[in-house]
Amino acid sequence: MAADRLTLGVAARLSRYLQVLTQSKKMGKSSISSQAISEYTGVNPTQIRRDLSGFGKFGKRGVGYDIDALIDEVRKILRTSGTHNIALFGAGNLGQAIAGSSVFGDHGFRISAIFDVDEAKVGTMVGDIPIRHYSELAESVASEDIMVGVLAIPAEVAQRVADDLVAAGVKIIFNYSDALLSVPSDVTVHTSSPAVELLYALYFYLS
Amino acid sequence: MAADRLTLGVAARLSRYLQVLTQSKKMGKSSISSQAISEYTGVNPTQIRRDLSGFGKFGKRGVGYDIDALIDEVRKILRTSGTHNIALFGAGNLGQAIAGSSVFGDHGFRISAIFDVDEAKVGTMVGDIPIRHYSELAESVASEDIMVGVLAIPAEVAQRVADDLVAAGVKIIFNYSDALLSVPSDVTVHTSSPAVELLYALYFYLS
Repeated sequence: MAADRLTLGVAARLSRYLQVLTQSKKMGKSSISSQAISEYTGVNPTQIRRDLSGFGKFGKRGVGYDIDALIDEVRKILRTSGTHNIALFGAGNLGQAIAGSSVFGDHGFRISAIFDVDEAKVGTMVGDIPIRHYSELAESVASEDIMVGVLAIPAEVAQRVADDLVAAGVKIIFNYSDALLSVPSDVTVHTSSPAVELLYALYFYLS
Repeated sequence: MAADRLTLGVAARLSRYLQVLTQSKKMGKSSISSQAISEYTGVNPTQIRRDLSGFGKFGKRGVGYDIDALIDEVRKILRTSGTHNIALFGAGNLGQAIAGSSVFGDHGFRISAIFDVDEAKVGTMVGDIPIRHYSELAESVASEDIMVGVLAIPAEVAQRVADDLVAAGVKIIFNYSDALLSVPSDVTVHTSSPAVELLYALYFYLS
């Protein structure tokens, strides 16, 4: 598969197109122009048309791209069709907000387990997902083919959970805490950083 | 000021360095090497040293950069020293998680107001921030010099709040909902998209 692997840039742009397509579909739209995708992603329309025509997708003049068909195609190209299981750590306000939203579900991620250490929470449900005790982590990862760990926990315990996830074989971690996580080089950590994006926007606004 | 404006790339990298520096400081460190900054940002160490030496900052061999001094300097360069006021919309689970965390505070953003339309919540506090009624939006933005609106609200109402923020003069919006927001070209919208980052990571993991 290495030969037809996408470049970093193409994969990043396709992911961003996919987000806009998914959002547009939820808002009831059935087609979208390259101009509209451009407005929401900042990628110029010519680049968008080139990326998509490279995969055999052409928008109709005056109509645009069929959203359903394009979502299917982009997910196939990104090889992320199907469902991927997530384990969510922390059933506090943030964890509950994540579990109650469709932010991951819309993109084929399923929260299959929520872990907490608070005995009062363990055994209760967030929506239709039961909260399990943290001690079940390794077993759950193995039995449910969990690909991603999402950390909605305090910074002080984030490294410990990351270590346990790595030991259980998870290769992708999404970190909502502000801990700096040390992981082996074959593990990818994404850290949520809204303030950094704001600083960046602010700089261009102020200068 | 236009002449000494940073390029997009430099400003983006400095913002990322700043995040790592702030996190490291919180974890009790006082110095950091370019190699360590590289591990957490993915920017190569040579580029990091070049960026920082361009602003007169040089790490000491075997010790690295003084974190406090570098944070001050980067914030000065980014012209984001001082405090910038945020208005947060939505006092649900997500809004409360944001208000209770230091994710914005660590970078000089202060949540000066939380707005909701739920009469049962208006007048109560989240930490030390009172929840106000949405109808006070325009007045608060003007009287408190609010620079940024953060949307922790359902997608169905996000465009309306964005419109009201734009009308009140706010130029930067951070959108946690999955609505696609239409704003004038002088307004910047950042949309939180953890699932998109995960898809991207997953692609490289699976292929």
